[in-house]
Order: sequence, then structure tokens, then C-alpha cells
Amino acid sequence: MVIGGKREARRAYGLDELALAPGTVNIDPDDIEIGLRIGELDFAIPFLASAMDGAVDPRVAIEMSRLGGLAVLNGEGLQTRYADANAAIADIIAEPVESVIPLIQKMYREPVKPELIAKRVEEIKAGGGRAVLAFTPLGARNAQVAIEAGADAVVIATTVTTTEFRSSKGPSLDLARFCKECSVPVIIGNAVTYAGVTDLLEAGAACVLVGVGPGAACTTRRVLGLGVPQATAVADSAQARDDYFERTGRYVPIIADGGLRTGGDICKAIACGADGVMMGQPVASSHEAPGKGHHWGMATSSANLPRGTRVKVGHKATLEQILFGPATTDDGTLNFVGALKLGMGTAGAATIREMQQVELLIAPTLATEGKRDQFAQKVGQGA
Amino acid sequence: MVIGGKREARRAYGLDELALAPGTVNIDPDDIEIGLRIGELDFAIPFLASAMDGAVDPRVAIEMSRLGGLAVLNGEGLQTRYADANAAIADIIAEPVESVIPLIQKMYREPVKPELIAKRVEEIKAGGGRAVLAFTPLGARNAQVAIEAGADAVVIATTVTTTEFRSSKGPSLDLARFCKECSVPVIIGNAVTYAGVTDLLEAGAACVLVGVGPGAACTTRRVLGLGVPQATAVADSAQARDDYFERTGRYVPIIADGGLRTGGDICKAIACGADGVMMGQPVASSHEAPGKGHHWGMATSSANLPRGTRVKVGHKATLEQILFGPATTDDGTLNFVGALKLGMGTAGAATIREMQQVELLIAPTLATEGKRDQFAQKVGQGA
Amino acid sequence: MVIGGKREARRAYGLDELALAPGTVNIDPDDIEIGLRIGELDFAIPFLASAMDGAVDPRVAIEMSRLGGLAVLNGEGLQTRYADANAAIADIIAEPVESVIPLIQKMYREPVKPELIAKRVEEIKAGGGRAVLAFTPLGARNAQVAIEAGADAVVIATTVTTTEFRSSKGPSLDLARFCKECSVPVIIGNAVTYAGVTDLLEAGAACVLVGVGPGAACTTRRVLGLGVPQATAVADSAQARDDYFERTGRYVPIIADGGLRTGGDICKAIACGADGVMMGQPVASSHEAPGKGHHWGMATSSANLPRGTRVKVGHKATLEQILFGPATTDDGTLNFVGALKLGMGTAGAATIREMQQVELLIAPTLATEGKRDQFAQKVGQGA
Amino acid sequence: MVIGGKREARRAYGLDELALAPGTVNIDPDDIEIGLRIGELDFAIPFLASAMDGAVDPRVAIEMSRLGGLAVLNGEGLQTRYADANAAIADIIAEPVESVIPLIQKMYREPVKPELIAKRVEEIKAGGGRAVLAFTPLGARNAQVAIEAGADAVVIATTVTTTEFRSSKGPSLDLARFCKECSVPVIIGNAVTYAGVTDLLEAGAACVLVGVGPGAACTTRRVLGLGVPQATAVADSAQARDDYFERTGRYVPIIADGGLRTGGDICKAIACGADGVMMGQPVASSHEAPGKGHHWGMATSSANLPRGTRVKVGHKATLEQILFGPATTDDGTLNFVGALKLGMGTAGAATIREMQQVELLIAPTLATEGKRDQFAQKVGQGA
Repeated sequence: MVIGGKREARRAYGLDELALAPGTVNIDPDDIEIGLRIGELDFAIPFLASAMDGAVDPRVAIEMSRLGGLAVLNGEGLQTRYADANAAIADIIAEPVESVIPLIQKMYREPVKPELIAKRVEEIKAGGGRAVLAFTPLGARNAQVAIEAGADAVVIATTVTTTEFRSSKGPSLDLARFCKECSVPVIIGNAVTYAGVTDLLEAGAACVLVGVGPGAACTTRRVLGLGVPQATAVADSAQARDDYFERTGRYVPIIADGGLRTGGDICKAIACGADGVMMGQPVASSHEAPGKGHHWGMATSSANLPRGTRVKVGHKATLEQILFGPATTDDGTLNFVGALKLGMGTAGAATIREMQQVELLIAPTLATEGKRDQFAQKVGQGA
Repeated sequence: MVIGGKREARRAYGLDELALAPGTVNIDPDDIEIGLRIGELDFAIPFLASAMDGAVDPRVAIEMSRLGGLAVLNGEGLQTRYADANAAIADIIAEPVESVIPLIQKMYREPVKPELIAKRVEEIKAGGGRAVLAFTPLGARNAQVAIEAGADAVVIATTVTTTEFRSSKGPSLDLARFCKECSVPVIIGNAVTYAGVTDLLEAGAACVLVGVGPGAACTTRRVLGLGVPQATAVADSAQARDDYFERTGRYVPIIADGGLRTGGDICKAIACGADGVMMGQPVASSHEAPGKGHHWGMATSSANLPRGTRVKVGHKATLEQILFGPATTDDGTLNFVGALKLGMGTAGAATIREMQQVELLIAPTLATEGKRDQFAQKVGQGA
Repeated sequence: MVIGGKREARRAYGLDELALAPGTVNIDPDDIEIGLRIGELDFAIPFLASAMDGAVDPRVAIEMSRLGGLAVLNGEGLQTRYADANAAIADIIAEPVESVIPLIQKMYREPVKPELIAKRVEEIKAGGGRAVLAFTPLGARNAQVAIEAGADAVVIATTVTTTEFRSSKGPSLDLARFCKECSVPVIIGNAVTYAGVTDLLEAGAACVLVGVGPGAACTTRRVLGLGVPQATAVADSAQARDDYFERTGRYVPIIADGGLRTGGDICKAIACGADGVMMGQPVASSHEAPGKGHHWGMATSSANLPRGTRVKVGHKATLEQILFGPATTDDGTLNFVGALKLGMGTAGAATIREMQQVELLIAPTLATEGKRDQFAQKVGQGA
Repeated sequence: MVIGGKREARRAYGLDELALAPGTVNIDPDDIEIGLRIGELDFAIPFLASAMDGAVDPRVAIEMSRLGGLAVLNGEGLQTRYADANAAIADIIAEPVESVIPLIQKMYREPVKPELIAKRVEEIKAGGGRAVLAFTPLGARNAQVAIEAGADAVVIATTVTTTEFRSSKGPSLDLARFCKECSVPVIIGNAVTYAGVTDLLEAGAACVLVGVGPGAACTTRRVLGLGVPQATAVADSAQARDDYFERTGRYVPIIADGGLRTGGDICKAIACGADGVMMGQPVASSHEAPGKGHHWGMATSSANLPRGTRVKVGHKATLEQILFGPATTDDGTLNFVGALKLGMGTAGAATIREMQQVELLIAPTLATEGKRDQFAQKVGQGA
């Protein structure tokens, strides 16, 4: 649409604006297939935990593997900067809200230690988990440390990852070369556009993380004006994946990353085209999470321009109950696997691939829905 | 509309987004015809009460019949699981809000008893009411028990009802065969799409309930991402009914079910194409309701994935005053029949069929309306 | 737009969704002409006060005339039912909010007395004011009483006024004949559609009131589902006026009635095509208003289906200060004449007729504006 | 779009409705060029401070110059009416909120004194700053006083500035002649339309301020109905600039003025086509601001129709930290230069001119974003 003069802007959609229509066929949830494959790695469920220090430590990585999913450990976070990461986390939790950002900025200035990277990989492997660590392009060297220590895959990610970074200071990481030389699958993120995802696929990504700006602990859109609503980001990225698959025969999963908090969000992200989902806050709210009910974004530690803060997410349930239920509340935050299977079955989709093609509706969140929610809240409070 | 890549989504509308334009002719409300016919059963008013345990018990069914409408009893609810259903309801009411969902889950694990089904039918018939009970497809056997005990009709309903349910465990209820062999009208629900309603009509439904997700005690959209805004659901379903009628000569009423709470909602649902409306919460808020001012959705009792909770709805008025007035408040929750007739008369519609064709507007709920409501509330509080 | 099946709905706009663009020419507010002519009656300013009992009594009618506008007295309200109308108003004001609707319903059951109609007309004329009283079509006989007592014009109005009312009880008022036989201008309302306004114009209306549902003390949309957002209602009605003028050479002003509360609302209503505005609440909030800071809609007294309630509007300023300033607040509720002239001058319109053609924008109330308002409020509270 | 009859309205967009998509190339923020040129004056950063008395005094003008930007002093404000402007400001700050508008109206009735104009220019020059003062068209004589005292440029501005003002009282300022005869660059504002900006460019403006109604301390839209959402205003104005540049070869920068409060707002305003931004509130919230944490709009002092009020904006940080960081909060209100450079780099723009062409999205503020913000706030409060 033209916003003024000849300047055009394209309408983008968020997940909250969408709803799924029921299918004409219903499928038994027990017959539904929701596995995910990244490179040669198979996962029983398409759920990844974000590389955020309040959500994932070696223990969570082990438990998440046991449950069939994948938790990514932040390779440049507190776990690899501090031998006693729990003490560092305890400091962040204890800090008053008005001074927590400066403290986080300070704590992440401590250098990353290669020996701790190796140690964390070994801890996860010793517990029977899949060890996957995340690094920024500048920290790609450390990714090699993780791989040598036995990591099953590595994640290379920044707020926005591109294959071309122009700087007068010299060239940046050559992603294509890195992927080629890497002995394990390389998951790359984050991207949100057709062109951006296509570039990462052509660079050799084994999986692409999709999402800029939608997470609860992220304020990128306020600070920089940048952000693509997640439904459009996923649909554009899925198109890039499908076109790349048609051209090359290589199917690379894309993962909706950020801003997903309910079973409904997950069902809709996949219906928009995702192969799986990555979640920070729901994992941070598990009993097992190292943040003990607190959560902060990766860009919170930026020295000059923090884009995120510490939020309190509480202790909801065990990771297993969050993923597999039983749900004891009706807010959609428990039993994600059950919700995904029932949502798929009701929409008439037997596989993730079919779910990517069910009928989508643009539905009024703020009119009908919004009013109803208000009402329900009011009467609920009175109960 | 394209939301990204080639992925399309269709804009769907909720009732709150609509308004009716006045007609150029006005009709005396006393001359307006609002009857409803389901199979061979005639009803003076097109109002049905939902098969929810907080809203309908035999006493409400009898009173609703006396007033010209129809209350459906939950054939798989507390009334058919417990001889002393009132005691069971009392337990649910007394439970603190944080533990009420687990309690509801537990109480609905008690088996349904055929003898109680027969007993409830007999109680309603003894009081001079029309006995109509609702069952899930899995409980269709029990529907036969109700029919043998003298039920006037049966309802077969789940969140989404389709004529085809695929499961490796074996075939599900053959709806077409069930309707054919049934000696009373079969009301089927819920559906929300053209294809879904068409299938149910072709299976032999005597009436179709329309609505997935819009009720106050339902959180399906948050949990599963599923839901069709009610204006679009009704309009699509009405089209299916009209096309089927043209093909077959059989006119099957469709009932807007869920999310209707005011006279305005009712007028708009019929203007979108419904032949009648089904309401849970307004009935639950009557003096006669068994829930004593409390209300919970049918999916609240789901063992793994509850989609609803107990809400407090209060004691508004008698069922008769709710339906026929006089209204003593201006919020649209009293005198539904008067509101429907005055709304129809002002829109220039003398019959339900004419009301289905009056002029509809998409009107800004959240701009003009929303602000005004806020204002009115503020000054009202000060009064 | 299609909302489902083949069912169409037209997008209608509220005033809050609009903004005016500045013109390329600016005009000195002192040079701007804002007069209004109804039949042979000239008014210096295009402001009418609604026939609501909390807003207009003979004293307000006299003062409003003195200021150049017109206040309409309710010919079927407390002033013509009770000799001591002030005592009746005092009872309504004193009643607790939860029982005020039943009290209002009861008080308006007292019959209208022809002798009081004549008395009110005489009081207004004695004070030098223009006497204009409002009646429903059923009370048209009483309009003759008012005319014989010296009324300058009469208003015939109901929620929706049509030239055709179908009832098995017999014919209703023949508006065309009434207008023809009437010796004073007949103002008719309310209408909101092209066809509805055209019918009233052809029946001989000297002025048409436009608006159904937008007022602060009116809940017609919630109760009946009926209502046309005011910007669309005015623009459609203005088209009817212009087409009728082209056909007949008779220019009949249309008055935007209801929901206008700020200078911005007034400027926008005229930019949508109105020749003047009618306001209830702003007049009710004047020092002179009989409601002493309270306000209730005409449909509040409906015996079976009240559509309105008593709202507290406070004592803002004198009628003169509300109309002519100076403003001492920045919320747009004072100095309506100054706001209209400055708004017109900035938009580049020297006359009401030019203002009806300035550039209109659909502007985001709830995005940009909404957020900013919230912010301003927050910092304002802290000041 | 047609809003009714044949009446058309154009959809306009606010900055909050937009988001920027990341580019496929990323650029090192250290390599990004963000300079601004007005006439012959070069500025290192494209940030201007508004001529508002709570934001700018000679000291702020000096500091802003030192930092590479430009602060405009109100030539008809307290600084040029009162020798001891600080005392006058102190009175406004001390006044209770309910009577502050009348006090502001009174204080701005004190005449502007040419000798104070000269004195303020000299103070700024003595401190090494660029002296730029703002006047209304009626005060153009005083602009000459400022120029003679050594001002580097002058601003001629009112709410809406047009080259043609029609008044029976006689002709107004001839802007074209004023610009021609002026020895320093003339910045003119405010305009919001293609035609309006084109007229000012052809009159010889060295820079045009764009924005009517969007500021936090401005209520023009509520009072007059006037206002153009800033994204559309900037895009239309940028088109006028580009077309004028193509016709004449003279490139005149346009400055987005009003309603900008975060790094995201700034990035988006430039992406819509602005060459720079002018900010009131962020400057008023600096430690150096004369308002000591208070801010009021220029139209607040209007004698008859105030459009603005005093708002409390607090003491956020030094001007240097606001502009250059480091940020210690994540709300986007600190480190504007860093945010602009990182936003540009992420969007793939190396220059302001490139930033004016990056991909824009219309993104749901109120659906996805809105809900998320609420959530973040809720959990944040609990932390």
C-alpha cells in the first residue's frame, strides 16, 4: 500500500491476527506425526528451547533431549563466561529492576572461556543429551571448540544474520565457508525475509531460525524500528525454503523463533509454514529453568543499546508437563504437544507438512476476541 | 489476502465488528414472526439453551419449553453421571478458582449412567417440557437410551463435528446412518465452514449448530489456534443451508451457538443468516439455572487439554424476564425477544427470513464505539 | 465486503477514525461564515441542543437563542408531564444508579399535558427565545398544540423515523401531510441512510436530524444491534440532500445529531457533509442545564427495552463559554465556535459549504494517537 | 476510500503502524553517514531540538551545537519576553495542574522584547553555539532583529504555515519575499501535505518542518479535528522535496517534527523520507533542559483555544547520553545516534538517502505487538 507520495509499505501479519479453520476431516491426535529433522538429527517433537541464559543450562538441555526436543545452550552466555554460572544468575535475579540492565551489561563483559565451552558440551553429553551451542558470527572460532568437544550441532545467530556484512574494518565470517567446513549441522538465524532466508540456505544452513523482534524479552522494534510480524516472517521464509527445495532437492527446516507462548501460537506458526518452533519464555517458566522464574533477552547485555530486559515469568510446571501435559489451566501454556496434535487433527492435518497448508483466517483479535477476554477476566475475578 | 510468500488467509468477521442499518420501512414489533421449526418440532421463539451443566437441568428444560424455546440437557454431564447432580454442582461451585479445573476434570471421569439418562428424560417430560439431550459421537449409544425414554430430539456434538474422523483405532460414528435410523430429529454441531455444514446437512441433520470458539467459557482459540469469528461462520453456514435447500428442497435451520450475550448480538447473528440462537451464559445467569450463577464450558473437563474454565455470571433475572422483559437495565442482557422484534422492525424485517437479508455494516468497534463506551463507563461510575 | 457466503457488508466509518488535512490556503477565522438556515429561520451559529430533559428547559432554550443557536425542548418529557419539572428532575438525580432506570421508566408514564406544552412555549417566547419542541410521530397532535401556542418550529423524531410504518393496528402519522399542513418548519429525525433521508426530504422536512446510536447516553447498538457510525451516516445523508437539491432546487440542512463532544468532532461532522450539529451532553454539562450535571437519553424511559441510562456529566462552564470560549482546558470541550472557525480557516474553508469539501483522512486513532494519548495522560497525572 | 455518498477519504498512516524489515546486507554502524545540511550549514547529526520553552534555552542551544545537532530557541517565548526567563519558568512549574493553562496564557501575554532577542542570540554565539530562533509569520520583523544580532538561521513557523493567508484585515507575511531578502537560511514549518510543502519550497525555504498534531504536548486533533499521521505526512512531503529537486536541482531537507520519542520512531521517520528529526519532549527530559522535567506546547498559550498542556517528562539523562548513549534502559529513549546507526546498518542503509528507501512494513501494533507489550509490562512489574 502507498503510505504517502510514492512510498510503499507492505501489510504484514502477526500470529495474533490469525485463526485456523477446522478441517472437513478430523484426524485422531494419536495418529499424527510431528517429528523434525535437522541435518541427520531426528527429533520426536518440533520444539526447540532458545539459547537464553534464564532458560537453558546443561540440565535443561539434557531433559529437553530426553523429551524428544532440543535445547540450545548460549555459547557466549553466563555458562561459558563463569565457572559458577548459577552464582552469576543469582546475582542477576537479586538485582533491583531499575539497575538490572547495567548489571547484565557488566556481567556479560566477562570474557567467554573456551575451556568452559568444552566443559558444558561434555556435561550435556554425559547426561545423554544432545549438545548444541549458539554463537555470534564473531564467536565462530568458539563454535569449533564446541564441535571438537563433541557438540551435535552449532547455532550461528545474531539479531539479524546476513551473508554479507560490510565494514571498513575488514571481512566478517564467511558463512558459506563455515558451513562447508563444519562437521556438524549449522543452524543459522535469525532471518525474516525471503531474500535473507534464501541467502542462508544457499550458504549451507541445516536449519534457519525465523523471527526478529517478536519475543517477550525483546524490544528491538521500539529501539530500532525493526521487526517483522511473525506470521508474515514465517510465511515468507517458508516460501524461500520451498523454492530452494524445488531448485535443489534439499529440504531445510525453518523454525519460528520468538513470541510463541501458547498452544494456539504454536499451531498457527506451523500453519504459516514453520517446521518447528523455538521458545524462550515457556522454557524459562519451567521448574528446571536456571533463571528460577526469570528471563532476559540476548540483546539485553548490549553495552550501548540494550534491547530487552529481565522479566519475571514464574514457575509454571515441569518441562515435561509444559510439553506433554496434563494441562491443569485453560490458558494454553501447558501440554504443547497435545495442543499441537489436537489442533492439527481438528484442522485435518496428519503431518507438519499438511498443517502448513490448512485454511488460515484473519480474525479480529481486538474486536470480538478482545471484548470476550475482558469479560471472561472480569467474571473470572469475581468467581 | 496474502500474508507472506504465496500463503493466503481470508478475512473473517466477528459480530462485534458489525452493525445493522435501519430500514426505510419500520414494522410494528407486534406484527413480527420469529418462530423456529426443527424437523417436525415448532418453537414460538428461536432461542435454545446450551447443553452446559451450569445452565440447564430438567427444571430449566421444562421452563424453557413453557416459554416457547428449547433447552438442551447435557447427556454426558453431571445430570447423567450423578444421581444427585446438585451435590456435584455444589462441589464445583465451592472449589477455589486455582484448583477448579482439576476438580472438574475429576468429576467428569465418573461414568455416564444409562438409567440416569432415562430418568432425566422422564423428569422433563413429566414437567411438560421437550426433552432434548446432547451427546458426543462416541456416546451415540446413549442417545438411543434417551430416545427410547421419550426424548423429542437428540443433539450430537463435539467441538468440531465432521462426517469423517480418521483413526487407526477404527471407524467412528456414521452420522448419515445414525440420522437415517433415528426416530427423532438429530441436531448436529458444531460446524463453522461451508463444507462442514454441507456435509452435516447431507448426512441428514435436522438442524446444525454453528460456532467454534466464540463462547465466554471457551478458550479454544488460545489453546489450539482454532476458531472462526461468528459473523463469518454464520454467513458461510447460511450459504451452505441455502444452497442445500435449493438442491434438495429441504430447509434445515442453522443455529448460531456461542458468544451471544446481548440483544444486539442476537439481532446481528440472525442478520448474518442464522435461523435461531443458542446461548449458554445468559441462561446460566438466570435465577433458575442449576449453576447458581456459575458457568463452565463443555471442554473444561477435558482430561489433558481443558479449553474453558468456571466463570461467575451472577443472578440476573428469571428466565422469563431475560427472554421477555421488561428490561430494567440498558446493557442489552434482558428482554431478548423484545430486542429481536424491535431490532427486526427497525431494520424493516417482518420475518426471520427477511432479517437474514437486511443491510449490514462493518462498523468501528474500537475507534468510535470503544472510546464512547469508555467515556460512558467513566461518567457512569461517577453518577 | 463479503463477510461469508455471498453475504455482503459495507464498511462504515466513525468520526474518531477521521482527521482533516490542513489546506494550502489559510483563512482568518474572523472572516468565516458559519450561519445556518432552517426554513425561514436564520441562526448565527450551527449549534442545536438536543431535546433531552437533563439538557434543555425553557431557560436553556432562551439562552441558546440569545447566543445564536437553537435548543429544542422535549415536548414529551418531564417539562410537559409535570408542572414542577424541577422537582421531577431532582428525584431522578437523587436516585441510586442501580434503580434509576426503573424510576425513569415510571416517571415518564405520567401523561403529557397539552396545557404544559402551551405553557412552555409561552415561557420561552416570553424570554425572547425561539420555541421549538420535539414530539414522536404518535404525539403529533401535541405538536399542533405547540404551534398554536406560538412555537417557531417543531421536531418530529424517534430513534429511526421512516415515512412508512407498517402495523396491523392501522396507519401511522402521514409525515408528508403533516409537513404540508404545518404552518412552521418541521424538523424530522432521526435518519442515517440515503434512502431514509431522501424519504424525509420528499415528505417535506425543513431539516433532517442524522444519527442513530452514536450518543453517549444511548446504547441502541448494544441492545438492538442497530447503529450507523456517524461519519458514514452524515456523508450518506449529505449525498441525499445534495441529490435532492439538484432535483428540486430546495436546500434542506442536515444536522449531525449525537456523539459529538469536542471541537474536533464538530469540525469533522461538518467536513463529512453536515450543515450543523446537535449536541446533548455538552449542553447538559453547562451551568445552566436543568439536569444539574446529569444526563439521560430519550430511550431510557422505554418501558420494556430501555436504551440509555443516566450519566454524570458535571458542570463544565456556562453555555456561553462552552460555545464562545475562552477555553481554559485543552480537551476540546470549550469554545466550540472558535474551534470550528479556526478548524475551517486552517483547512482553508471560508463557509460551511466549503468545509463540507475539505480533504479528509482516515487516520489511526488506536495506533499512533491512542498510544500518544496514554502517554500524555500518564505524564499528565504525574505533573 | 468512500466513507459515504461520494465523499472520499484517504488512508493515512502513523509511525506506530510501521516497522522496518532487515536488509539482506548489514553495514557496520561505524561506517554509516548521518550528516544533515541546511543551506550552507552542516550538522554532524540530523537531530534538531524544538523551539519549546521547557526544552531549549541558550545553554541547551550551545550544548546541542557542541554535540553536532541544532537546538532552535523560541523567539516569541519566555526567553524573549522576560529578562529572567528562569523565574518565569519556575512560576509555570510551580502552578497546580488545574490552573496551569490560564497561567501560561497570561504569561505569554507579556510582549516580546527586541533587546532580549538580540541578547539571547549573543549568549548562544558567545558559548560557541549556532543561534537559530523561531518566529511566527506575524513576528517576522523580530526575525530581522535576530539576524542582525548574528543568528545563523531563522525559523518561521505556526501550526500550519501556508504561503497564502486570506484575511479581510490585509495581507500577511510574503514568505517568498522574506526568504529572498533574508541573509541567512530560512527554515519554515509546519506543513504536512505535498502541496503545502511544495509551496514552501518554491517560496525559498532552506528546510521544511513536517508535522501537524503528532506531538505529546499537542491536542490539535482533538480540538480542531486537524492532524496528519506522521508517516504519511513525511512520505508526502518527501515526495514534494524529491519532485522539487528534480525540477530545480535544489535539494531541501525536510525534518520530521513532533511525536518522535524513541530510536524506533526516528529510524521510521527517516525511512518514510525525512532528512532529519526535530524533538521536543526528549530534549525537555534532559538534565540540561530549562523546564526542569516539564514540557508544554507552543499552542498551549493560545488565549482563546489552547491546544496543549504542561506535561511532566522527568529527568532522563544528559543531552549527550540521550543522543550518544550508553543506554541503560531498553525503552528506546537513550542513545538515539546509536539506534539510528544500528537501525540503518541492520536495514542495510549506509546513508540517510538509502535509509529513505529501505523496505517498510505495515505491522499490527495493536494485535501482536500490543498484547505482547501488555504482557511484558505485567511480568516486568512483578520482577
